[in-house]
Amino acid sequence: MSDASPVPFSTLGGLESEAAKVVSADAWAYLQSGAAEEDAMRANRDAFRRRTLRPRALIDVTHLDLTTKLLDETVSAPFFVCPMARQGLLHPDGELATARAAAAANVLAVFSTLSTRSIEEVGRSVPKGPRWFQLYLQPEFAASQRLVERAEKAGYSALMLTVDMPVLGPRDRLVERGFVIAEDAPVGSGSEILAPDRFPKGGAGHYTLRRDAGATWNVLDDLQSITRLPVVVKGILTGEDARRAVTHGARAVVVSNHGGRQLNAAQAALEALPEVVRSVGSEVEVYFDSGVRRGSDVLMALALGARGVGIGRPVLWALALGGEAGVRHLLSLLTSELATDMALVGRRKLSEIDRTLLGAERW
Amino acid sequence: MSDASPVPFSTLGGLESEAAKVVSADAWAYLQSGAAEEDAMRANRDAFRRRTLRPRALIDVTHLDLTTKLLDETVSAPFFVCPMARQGLLHPDGELATARAAAAANVLAVFSTLSTRSIEEVGRSVPKGPRWFQLYLQPEFAASQRLVERAEKAGYSALMLTVDMPVLGPRDRLVERGFVIAEDAPVGSGSEILAPDRFPKGGAGHYTLRRDAGATWNVLDDLQSITRLPVVVKGILTGEDARRAVTHGARAVVVSNHGGRQLNAAQAALEALPEVVRSVGSEVEVYFDSGVRRGSDVLMALALGARGVGIGRPVLWALALGGEAGVRHLLSLLTSELATDMALVGRRKLSEIDRTLLGAERW
Amino acid sequence: MSDASPVPFSTLGGLESEAAKVVSADAWAYLQSGAAEEDAMRANRDAFRRRTLRPRALIDVTHLDLTTKLLDETVSAPFFVCPMARQGLLHPDGELATARAAAAANVLAVFSTLSTRSIEEVGRSVPKGPRWFQLYLQPEFAASQRLVERAEKAGYSALMLTVDMPVLGPRDRLVERGFVIAEDAPVGSGSEILAPDRFPKGGAGHYTLRRDAGATWNVLDDLQSITRLPVVVKGILTGEDARRAVTHGARAVVVSNHGGRQLNAAQAALEALPEVVRSVGSEVEVYFDSGVRRGSDVLMALALGARGVGIGRPVLWALALGGEAGVRHLLSLLTSELATDMALVGRRKLSEIDRTLLGAERW
Amino acid sequence: MSDASPVPFSTLGGLESEAAKVVSADAWAYLQSGAAEEDAMRANRDAFRRRTLRPRALIDVTHLDLTTKLLDETVSAPFFVCPMARQGLLHPDGELATARAAAAANVLAVFSTLSTRSIEEVGRSVPKGPRWFQLYLQPEFAASQRLVERAEKAGYSALMLTVDMPVLGPRDRLVERGFVIAEDAPVGSGSEILAPDRFPKGGAGHYTLRRDAGATWNVLDDLQSITRLPVVVKGILTGEDARRAVTHGARAVVVSNHGGRQLNAAQAALEALPEVVRSVGSEVEVYFDSGVRRGSDVLMALALGARGVGIGRPVLWALALGGEAGVRHLLSLLTSELATDMALVGRRKLSEIDRTLLGAERW
Repeated sequence: MSDASPVPFSTLGGLESEAAKVVSADAWAYLQSGAAEEDAMRANRDAFRRRTLRPRALIDVTHLDLTTKLLDETVSAPFFVCPMARQGLLHPDGELATARAAAAANVLAVFSTLSTRSIEEVGRSVPKGPRWFQLYLQPEFAASQRLVERAEKAGYSALMLTVDMPVLGPRDRLVERGFVIAEDAPVGSGSEILAPDRFPKGGAGHYTLRRDAGATWNVLDDLQSITRLPVVVKGILTGEDARRAVTHGARAVVVSNHGGRQLNAAQAALEALPEVVRSVGSEVEVYFDSGVRRGSDVLMALALGARGVGIGRPVLWALALGGEAGVRHLLSLLTSELATDMALVGRRKLSEIDRTLLGAERW
Repeated sequence: MSDASPVPFSTLGGLESEAAKVVSADAWAYLQSGAAEEDAMRANRDAFRRRTLRPRALIDVTHLDLTTKLLDETVSAPFFVCPMARQGLLHPDGELATARAAAAANVLAVFSTLSTRSIEEVGRSVPKGPRWFQLYLQPEFAASQRLVERAEKAGYSALMLTVDMPVLGPRDRLVERGFVIAEDAPVGSGSEILAPDRFPKGGAGHYTLRRDAGATWNVLDDLQSITRLPVVVKGILTGEDARRAVTHGARAVVVSNHGGRQLNAAQAALEALPEVVRSVGSEVEVYFDSGVRRGSDVLMALALGARGVGIGRPVLWALALGGEAGVRHLLSLLTSELATDMALVGRRKLSEIDRTLLGAERW
Repeated sequence: MSDASPVPFSTLGGLESEAAKVVSADAWAYLQSGAAEEDAMRANRDAFRRRTLRPRALIDVTHLDLTTKLLDETVSAPFFVCPMARQGLLHPDGELATARAAAAANVLAVFSTLSTRSIEEVGRSVPKGPRWFQLYLQPEFAASQRLVERAEKAGYSALMLTVDMPVLGPRDRLVERGFVIAEDAPVGSGSEILAPDRFPKGGAGHYTLRRDAGATWNVLDDLQSITRLPVVVKGILTGEDARRAVTHGARAVVVSNHGGRQLNAAQAALEALPEVVRSVGSEVEVYFDSGVRRGSDVLMALALGARGVGIGRPVLWALALGGEAGVRHLLSLLTSELATDMALVGRRKLSEIDRTLLGAERW
Repeated sequence: MSDASPVPFSTLGGLESEAAKVVSADAWAYLQSGAAEEDAMRANRDAFRRRTLRPRALIDVTHLDLTTKLLDETVSAPFFVCPMARQGLLHPDGELATARAAAAANVLAVFSTLSTRSIEEVGRSVPKGPRWFQLYLQPEFAASQRLVERAEKAGYSALMLTVDMPVLGPRDRLVERGFVIAEDAPVGSGSEILAPDRFPKGGAGHYTLRRDAGATWNVLDDLQSITRLPVVVKGILTGEDARRAVTHGARAVVVSNHGGRQLNAAQAALEALPEVVRSVGSEVEVYFDSGVRRGSDVLMALALGARGVGIGRPVLWALALGGEAGVRHLLSLLTSELATDMALVGRRKLSEIDRTLLGAERW
């Protein structure tokens, strides 16, 4: 922020509590909730706070280079905006604000099947991207195919297929509020704004089969048969699944526990990263999300072998606080912190970041 | 819950605090109390929260099968209702409500010697079961024999012998309230409703020899000589004791620290499960209870080798909130969560659940 | 408590908070304070809560035997009353109440050099003991000798020499209150009741050399040359010091960190117990104190190799709440809990207690 | 404190909370803040509290000797006053008060480039020292050279070069207050008192390249070519950097994470001490700071191989509470506690302190 105009929030540390003040209780519950007692969500943060990095001194860090390539896309930072559903809940501009802020920073943004703005509207708002399309499989493959074709036509340059949600995880916070997600609304159509209908408390059972509960790894082959876009598989926590994804043609995998929203007993995503890197890191790009809040978190994930690091809830907090300007400020602070921390560990470009950065765990 | 009628509570996470609002202080102290400073009780929960499960992706989980056999009983879920004393404290229908809800769900329920409804009354209320009888040994073996004969006649299909209560553990919460359990009331007779007589505070010493303090492993032989019912031994925390139980003819053992109510220094029950499974798991069925609150807890215990998983206090919380309907809702939510979590780890039937599900511990 | 009269407190768990209500703020600060930030004091408790015991089932525990011998004294329980200074701060009867309660229960009590009642007065109050005398070395050996002779004459049957207080540990709680211990008052004379003079806050420096700062191990030889009483060395936390004590003729050692009142960085006393037992346990008796609050703590220390287990602050809490009757009730509850826990782990006498009782640590 | 006059605070434990009452909110934020979420700052304390020391008994500790040599300076204690910027924020006398108190106690004090009093003014106030000059490299080496020459002329006897601040760490607490450090003010000139200008909240980006971001290890050679003063390198957390410092002529290194103010993911400084001692401890002196609050902390760092131990924030808390008298009282209490703890572990002089003092970690 080089100008003197007020900024929507001051620090990455204060962002969440600032956002809590402006977001409606329903949308907040939807945004913040993790599975069940939210152990997986807390574990995501603990995993970062437990690890340490080794500072190095007296290296010339006057010039830092944070640019990288994610698949074939040259971007200005190794972090990207995670696909997150229903951004219209946080700000009237919804995904358009996010898209513009990311494009202005030349940061990759991934847009959800469950967007409140249509595939085409987002595409028109930022003609040059970089942007990818996140795909939730539809009950009929033909419907998935239509989404892919629309994304391809609208200039999205990769598909990110989410595979960790065959069923919806239990979300106590949402159910306690009587807030129910209308899973059957048409997708990717721009009509996804949630009508926060209130069901009788507990009226909805927890076990909700999603449309893609029957999908298997063959779906990767099917997708590749209908599109030239590279396929990234999101929601991997084991070396075995990463291997299968690669066997079926995935160009990259995203290590993620869905922000702690699916399986409460899941390991912290960061704990699973080394296993996935060992399994497929020499063959495809490995990305990471779940629990990233600060520049040092990005650096930590890079040191553990991630090539790209997804930012989730903080983007929506910033969106709620300032729309496009909020997301721009967030991306700016993240860039600053990542640069600061790279300087403090004496690495001037991303290719210098590796596991030798890691110190002993804190406890 | 497929109909639109209000449910007695919304989530498994909110169940305990909802119940606290409706249960009398005396009954709550009785229900909630653990031994001494309640370290063993807390450790039961910590043991679950520390462990993780490994999600697996893109497995067709459209159809899940949760049925299993516990001894020779085919049931619809691998969890069962623990034997818990004095259910009339929580709801006027007491054990009848629990029995009807369990039978409706085809879930095994075990009824305590210290029930507020008689063996026969419970039996008549759910003619088809599945139900087992929990036995506390009586001072005279003849009295135990009469209980067993009544249970057998009333259609109970197995005996669960509790062996971890030769004396009553110290229960500070109860003593502080001046609440004393009338251990000498006639048992299994339906006259067990507690008159919450208030003794002078501290008037009762802690060390109370129970009627069965003199029992030894030979009692298993004695029991088998008087009944054709299979005998399950409940309250085992070591491989050695599991081995002895099997040597003396037990058809199954229940790993349990009595919900943390007996020895405050006891290990968490879940920590003892692998040792017992190693010791006797290839010969008899191993069950588990103590600290189970959610579907993922059931899945965790199954992954560690349990065949059946007992649900304790949550049943009574649900009973207090809604009688039979409350327990039905609880069993429904548990089934949903277990199914959800099985889908997220990619296991479609119980026989696919094993230790490969387990990830690294959280800390 | 077999009669129906009110008891001074209900449970071991509630004892401390009950006592806090009746003790003056000055005396409470004196009694409760640990060194500096009280990490050592907290660590004493954590060490117990982290360890587990393995329950065993179906052993005939109808008859339990808690008697043991400490040196040559046959006592009714393996725990003893620690030497604690200035008991008159808690109750007008001071050490006399403690002495009578312990003697009535045939429990060993050790009385401090810094008592508010004289050696002789305590001796007369309980002619048959069992009681030992705790010695703080005096600046002149002749003064120590006079104390020893008085104790011997008054029927004390052993000397417990405290060796962990060459200087007084920093006690923030006391200094913050302006409470200063008059270390130079005559000792063992019955004139030790503290005049809680208030010094200007912080007026006293922390580093106060005590009278015995110059003592070395030879003092054990000197003591044995002037008395026939066996010498017990209290305040040992290393195998090396235990070995030295034995080399210099000690008949027993007490593993203790002085209730966390001396070195804040000291390990928990319980953590040091195995090392001392390995070092000298086959040659002399090893006792333990620091952090013992419940019967299961006693059992834990016994399982780790202690022969006698000292109870400290709880005795003074009980003394404050009920004088002699309070201490009697405490000893009764402790006996009950120890018996309860022995029954739950299936050990009928103290000689059956060993390390096979110990389970895995909790975290 | 041998006289009866009131002291500015009572205990080391209460010092921080007392100081919080008298320091302005802005200065407090500046003084207390750590990087980001302050994990590194908390970890510094945890590292001390987790470690233990082994008390030893019956060693004659009547006479203790705390004197040592730091480089060629004979001082009365092994601790020293860390270089800390802008002491005028805490007390009008600023660095002069600190200098006088340290000199009176013959304790080494290190003064920051960013002092509120000029190099010469501090020098005149305590002609005999002992004092060293902390150097932040200036954009032009000539400017650094002028500072060094002034320090040398003013009687400072060593240079401490800070190397862990090529950029300023993110300080959420400061940014949230809109408090911005005027990094471009002239340094070492006595004009450094902060005008606590309030910038628009968040108006300042986090990533601020400092003047010395381009410096490399060659700067040590350059410094040695312009001064006869020995060079100490401050801000080392790895064995590799310690080795480089020694290769480039450093006479000592300071293991420090800058009080947790730079890299939030840095390991606790104490955790890095053994690695640095192993790397260069046999060749140069190793000092330590970050998290030291009490005498036992000093002893712990000495046991781990530090020769000198820096005290940071406590000096400023004491300065705020009592100016020169406050710092004198602090140094007196620290000396007393260090002596107390040395007596309790049976070491009479610093050369007797080594790793055999260390016990098992607490958890």
